[in-house]
Amino acid sequence: MKKPGQTNAKQAAGEKASWLVKDGMVVGLGTGSTTAYAIIALGKRVLEGLDILGVPTSYQSAFLASENGILLTTLDEHPLIDIDIDGADQISNSAAIKGGGAAHTQEKIVALSSKYFVVVVDEAKYSEVLNHPVPLEVLPKARKLVGKQVKELGGNARLRMGVEKDGPVISDNGNFIMDADFRVIDNPEALASRLSQCTGIVEHGIFTNVDAIYIGKKDGSVEIQEF
Amino acid sequence: MKKPGQTNAKQAAGEKASWLVKDGMVVGLGTGSTTAYAIIALGKRVLEGLDILGVPTSYQSAFLASENGILLTTLDEHPLIDIDIDGADQISNSAAIKGGGAAHTQEKIVALSSKYFVVVVDEAKYSEVLNHPVPLEVLPKARKLVGKQVKELGGNARLRMGVEKDGPVISDNGNFIMDADFRVIDNPEALASRLSQCTGIVEHGIFTNVDAIYIGKKDGSVEIQEF
Repeated sequence: MKKPGQTNAKQAAGEKASWLVKDGMVVGLGTGSTTAYAIIALGKRVLEGLDILGVPTSYQSAFLASENGILLTTLDEHPLIDIDIDGADQISNSAAIKGGGAAHTQEKIVALSSKYFVVVVDEAKYSEVLNHPVPLEVLPKARKLVGKQVKELGGNARLRMGVEKDGPVISDNGNFIMDADFRVIDNPEALASRLSQCTGIVEHGIFTNVDAIYIGKKDGSVEIQEF
Repeated sequence: MKKPGQTNAKQAAGEKASWLVKDGMVVGLGTGSTTAYAIIALGKRVLEGLDILGVPTSYQSAFLASENGILLTTLDEHPLIDIDIDGADQISNSAAIKGGGAAHTQEKIVALSSKYFVVVVDEAKYSEVLNHPVPLEVLPKARKLVGKQVKELGGNARLRMGVEKDGPVISDNGNFIMDADFRVIDNPEALASRLSQCTGIVEHGIFTNVDAIYIGKKDGSVEIQEF
């Protein structure tokens, strides 16, 4: 459910962060509703002459960028990205949980290829403690094995089911998404490391390489944190 | 929205059709809410000693069959299926439109590998005219080309978007789903043939090889039509 003021807050954060992008840059284009405001704002500046190339993190961001006149490129052609702007499901200090949109594998590839990784969120996503379930992109054949390994790590993973399709959600890469609930995550780096070692998990949704957060407020102001 | 009596009607059709399955048969297991009742009914008979093998048409039907104790096999091992039970989005005489659950490619492979193909529906799915949008499984790179070809055939195709993921729905095979609206379809065989010739369409959702329909009514009775 959208809360009153949340649209304002998302738009403020997305647009503010888009001003970090300068002429000649290669820009990582994240997925989700807050990042969409950044992409639309960049599209307006491209119309006015801004010269950038975008690297999309999903079909969603690729479509939106194209519709807004942003030229796209790939990591094969431009392996080093100047700045990546992306959203998060929850963020606490420099650790974020991503993957609600099932795009976190591509998003992490782009984030780790970037010199500067900015997360844009509305204030409802900022939390003192990290306790959001961690999205896991999972090889279909490893579904039960991953459930078992997550249980051994103290969590509880459930397969995300589709709404506009029967059966499970399938990611842009053709894999399953499981949402693994660990309740409060005291040490995101440690959990990230353990999840990375699980066989069958293509990628987990914990991001610990955040350089800055742009937190949009209901009143349209933006709080910036840098790490 | 579920209408009152629809659950009854679906259950009646699914359970009635499940009695076509006899000991020793290889059974195609369709996708969707009506077929689910057939799978659950078969699971109960397996507990009582029925000896069958199931060929699933999706992750959904594979999971449900396993949970209900039905042994699974593949078309590699059993290329000839005795009977296939599956649902439909709309049916008129022996022509059905399928793919609302994004599983119609696998469903058609199983249906065409079957000696007898039974469609189970509630009465709301039966229609004198066929006018439901036709689901198309589409190679991601061919999205715009398919839109153009569908337009040339007099239809209008829109990309199906995800709900539990950002961006488009991805099928179990890793492809897109487009829903192509042709309004009234007077000649489903002709349209099926033309859609099959479009480059980039992996498979369309028109099925013209239906052998029987089991139509469940709100009062729990089932009308049977054979072709």
